Amino acid sequence: MKIGFIGLGHMGQGIARNILKAGHEVTVYNRSRGPAEQLAGDGARLAASADEACRGDVVVSMLADDAALDQVLIESGVIARLPASAIHICMATISIAMARRLAELHVRHGSAYVSAPCFGRPAAAAAAQLTIVAAGPAQAMARVRPLLNALGPNIFEFGGDAYLANVVKLSGNFFIASVIETMGEAFALTRKHGISPDAYFEFFRSIFDCRPVRAYGEIITQGKYEPAGFRLLLGLKDLNLVLAAGGEVNVALPVASLVRDHMLSGIARGCGEMDWSVIAELSAQDAGLTART
Amino acid sequence: MKIGFIGLGHMGQGIARNILKAGHEVTVYNRSRGPAEQLAGDGARLAASADEACRGDVVVSMLADDAALDQVLIESGVIARLPASAIHICMATISIAMARRLAELHVRHGSAYVSAPCFGRPAAAAAAQLTIVAAGPAQAMARVRPLLNALGPNIFEFGGDAYLANVVKLSGNFFIASVIETMGEAFALTRKHGISPDAYFEFFRSIFDCRPVRAYGEIITQGKYEPAGFRLLLGLKDLNLVLAAGGEVNVALPVASLVRDHMLSGIARGCGEMDWSVIAELSAQDAGLTART
Amino acid sequence: MKIGFIGLGHMGQGIARNILKAGHEVTVYNRSRGPAEQLAGDGARLAASADEACRGDVVVSMLADDAALDQVLIESGVIARLPASAIHICMATISIAMARRLAELHVRHGSAYVSAPCFGRPAAAAAAQLTIVAAGPAQAMARVRPLLNALGPNIFEFGGDAYLANVVKLSGNFFIASVIETMGEAFALTRKHGISPDAYFEFFRSIFDCRPVRAYGEIITQGKYEPAGFRLLLGLKDLNLVLAAGGEVNVALPVASLVRDHMLSGIARGCGEMDWSVIAELSAQDAGLTART
Amino acid sequence: MKIGFIGLGHMGQGIARNILKAGHEVTVYNRSRGPAEQLAGDGARLAASADEACRGDVVVSMLADDAALDQVLIESGVIARLPASAIHICMATISIAMARRLAELHVRHGSAYVSAPCFGRPAAAAAAQLTIVAAGPAQAMARVRPLLNALGPNIFEFGGDAYLANVVKLSGNFFIASVIETMGEAFALTRKHGISPDAYFEFFRSIFDCRPVRAYGEIITQGKYEPAGFRLLLGLKDLNLVLAAGGEVNVALPVASLVRDHMLSGIARGCGEMDWSVIAELSAQDAGLTART
Repeated sequence: MKIGFIGLGHMGQGIARNILKAGHEVTVYNRSRGPAEQLAGDGARLAASADEACRGDVVVSMLADDAALDQVLIESGVIARLPASAIHICMATISIAMARRLAELHVRHGSAYVSAPCFGRPAAAAAAQLTIVAAGPAQAMARVRPLLNALGPNIFEFGGDAYLANVVKLSGNFFIASVIETMGEAFALTRKHGISPDAYFEFFRSIFDCRPVRAYGEIITQGKYEPAGFRLLLGLKDLNLVLAAGGEVNVALPVASLVRDHMLSGIARGCGEMDWSVIAELSAQDAGLTART
Repeated sequence: MKIGFIGLGHMGQGIARNILKAGHEVTVYNRSRGPAEQLAGDGARLAASADEACRGDVVVSMLADDAALDQVLIESGVIARLPASAIHICMATISIAMARRLAELHVRHGSAYVSAPCFGRPAAAAAAQLTIVAAGPAQAMARVRPLLNALGPNIFEFGGDAYLANVVKLSGNFFIASVIETMGEAFALTRKHGISPDAYFEFFRSIFDCRPVRAYGEIITQGKYEPAGFRLLLGLKDLNLVLAAGGEVNVALPVASLVRDHMLSGIARGCGEMDWSVIAELSAQDAGLTART
Repeated sequence: MKIGFIGLGHMGQGIARNILKAGHEVTVYNRSRGPAEQLAGDGARLAASADEACRGDVVVSMLADDAALDQVLIESGVIARLPASAIHICMATISIAMARRLAELHVRHGSAYVSAPCFGRPAAAAAAQLTIVAAGPAQAMARVRPLLNALGPNIFEFGGDAYLANVVKLSGNFFIASVIETMGEAFALTRKHGISPDAYFEFFRSIFDCRPVRAYGEIITQGKYEPAGFRLLLGLKDLNLVLAAGGEVNVALPVASLVRDHMLSGIARGCGEMDWSVIAELSAQDAGLTART
Repeated sequence: MKIGFIGLGHMGQGIARNILKAGHEVTVYNRSRGPAEQLAGDGARLAASADEACRGDVVVSMLADDAALDQVLIESGVIARLPASAIHICMATISIAMARRLAELHVRHGSAYVSAPCFGRPAAAAAAQLTIVAAGPAQAMARVRPLLNALGPNIFEFGGDAYLANVVKLSGNFFIASVIETMGEAFALTRKHGISPDAYFEFFRSIFDCRPVRAYGEIITQGKYEPAGFRLLLGLKDLNLVLAAGGEVNVALPVASLVRDHMLSGIARGCGEMDWSVIAELSAQDAGLTART
């Protein structure tokens, strides 16, 4: 298929490369030119504009947030100009309001929209090990399924309403954030009682073995929140989206509220650029413990 | 070794049986006689009193809570009358205050005390698949280690202060409770948006695969909180112990406070005898959803 | 002065009438015609459009929320067409983002903007007993001060940045909401212990005598949440604005988060049209108490 | 009447003095002798032991907490030796469990017990301006009512079960703590937006005028948490009692949980000896603001 790819950040690059590897013809566009040129070395064609990347069968976008998406694809009129048969797959973590707006916009212009946000760090994206949650019109899903299969072994589909994939994605980020917060509190409790974080983590990892525990337990144990894998500022953005997703249907998410408050405090105390698991460090500080490092 | 075993509830029976299988001479005592007689069929000797079970090398106790332990072993004077070389292993989930009191009491009477609370349901106890966290004086630990090894493949040790094993155990139950609460909120969010709990759990289990997610996700998905694996009333007891463990060292545990409040409300609304994961059902009700069943 | 008045809801009518009484020439506009005609009987001139009401020295708007204000005054171009010397006073509870947007818009078009949100129920508006918090450019403030003085005895000014008055207004609504929530919890606690709400409120009102305690304690004691003085749905809107005001400057407001969650649950459980103090009834229900009525 | 008075702290001294002024014969006892000797100058008789102070018609105790009360009056056997007709009035803020234990103990020994905890700082105690909440057997209440009337203008009675007065007292302290917490958050929000705390407090005091707002708003505005009027450590003790009072009847008090967590963090961060309103300073710090002083 002819694929346009827009947004070549850390995640986007790995994904675009795997689409190339799967044998598709890929045209890439990125607001700053550097990342696009790297992809050219792997066989991608470079587009000088978003429009130019949007002339094929499918457009995959991986832009930072609602605002970037709005600017690059909506306000610019790019979506309005898509070919009628085109399918737009948005893989970024956007608000459910934006996902709904995109779905309506594409319907109005005769194209199709699929939400396919994903779980996994840049290394997982590069290794085609993403977990993808997808939703969108059945015909569009059928056409893009092979493409998504090239990006990771697990795809979970949630029916015809594209935004539902975003609800699921956000709920997953919420769970990860809750695991981080709870680990932070549990580590503060045990450290204040004099238990070594290393010994504690050995136990913890053994009994509660899952991805967020492994990934963030390591960071918390070492107290090493820089460089950030996922910045606290982005974590806050996601928690705000989670709470908005709850607010739309009047579902209170008290743990999410609590984590958001903790994140706000972390940012106010100067940790916005650190890894979002730094909220564990705040739990330690709030308990009167000093930084480990 | 000559082992006394006190407290033959669902957990105690499985543990006592595995000690018998490991070739030890086991004398059992239980306040109600039925469970003790079952063990007799497996080769255990029956004691008519707690004292009678406490004449060997080691006494293992698995009594329901602080109050039961106080009544059966402390107020009764049983601990004061233990042989000087004896070691008492308490495997129950007790308060850290009680664990410290026991440690002091044993030191005063010349015996030794080891805390060895465990993770696992009765089936895991029966299958010698418990995870045990243990702490106590080095000499005592050295003598009882082989015994604990007969009960499960994973033993994590936390040094000479016995109560630290209880801190770790409580922190683990806190994490499980937080996972249940967060799953409950996430399930309420996605269900209110119209996503099927079964489809959601398939995704959830895949990406966050760990014991509490598997065990409680199943129950939440089916909305089947009876019969209880672990009653909400006991869950509340544990959360109170967690908060007390934090209070002793001035560590706030906001997620634990939130879960405790939710549990109190569950009990007030008539769910005290249900499985403690019923707090997920409350999240659903608070979101205006009706029971699934 | 020649005053335009836009938005004749329960609050707006009382305010407009007091402006008339103070001897100003008032032209009123309301989207539905009925309320405007009532004012005509008191000497107001009726405008057929918002524009027509905006040809005097000052325009006072009291529209329901950000969206209504946007529709009636911004999108419609009314603000852009204001006379250069005109001052717009917005007395509604709007977001701080909207207040800032208004200030910028007026500067761009050569007019001036003052935020003057107020505290008080419709009866207080009618009786010229509002408490007003105001902010805006010094010259504009100087001109409108006499007008505001006609609406209530207490005006608190917060400098040249108009949106700061909205920050203060929102913080006040937050405090009122917290008082309601805490009273609800305290009433549930004492009622569950068997204490009569009437006896309890007699004590409570005596020792914590202030407006929100008097007003909402009465409602809570009687369990009479209908008809609503201020609907829960509007209360939620305000709490969301409070949290947004905190989010903008990275200030966590944990009590506000908790109250918002409680409000969401109240709306999900069917109480959106009741008085916002109905969250006290939810505290009672969560405690296993039944409705008083 | 012949009155014994036990516990001459800051509150006790003022109360004892007012009982003297009301014309009663007062025998005082205090563990440290200094404060008792001061009372002697006002006409009190000095007792060398608690027993000696307990030979009259009424014993008033104002001891620091459950533990002090237990030590001085229960374990010591003083209550068991009271004359049969004697009435014990406990004015301290004790747990509801202790209040119930006292009531039972007195019944068993033929004496009577009245709970009469009070609101007011030492200055209010000295000026006979306390607000008292009282409960206990009708006959005993009838006899001590004139005595309580000498201590303050407002007495609220809650029936025959003495501990209910303690429930009410604790609920009142909970409300005060919530007001402090919410003011702390509101001040942090407005300060972070650049509003002067002095200007803000002028507004706040005007619109939400009540005792805790006046008393603590002053302290928060000035950032002057030392010397403590009421120490954070004692505040935490009270919040723990509030939560226990809720726990007994399965009433969740989320705001109380939140305040307790904040207090724990304050103590961990070194503020235990400061005024309990220092939690407002923590809200400021969590918002990235620096101390005002």
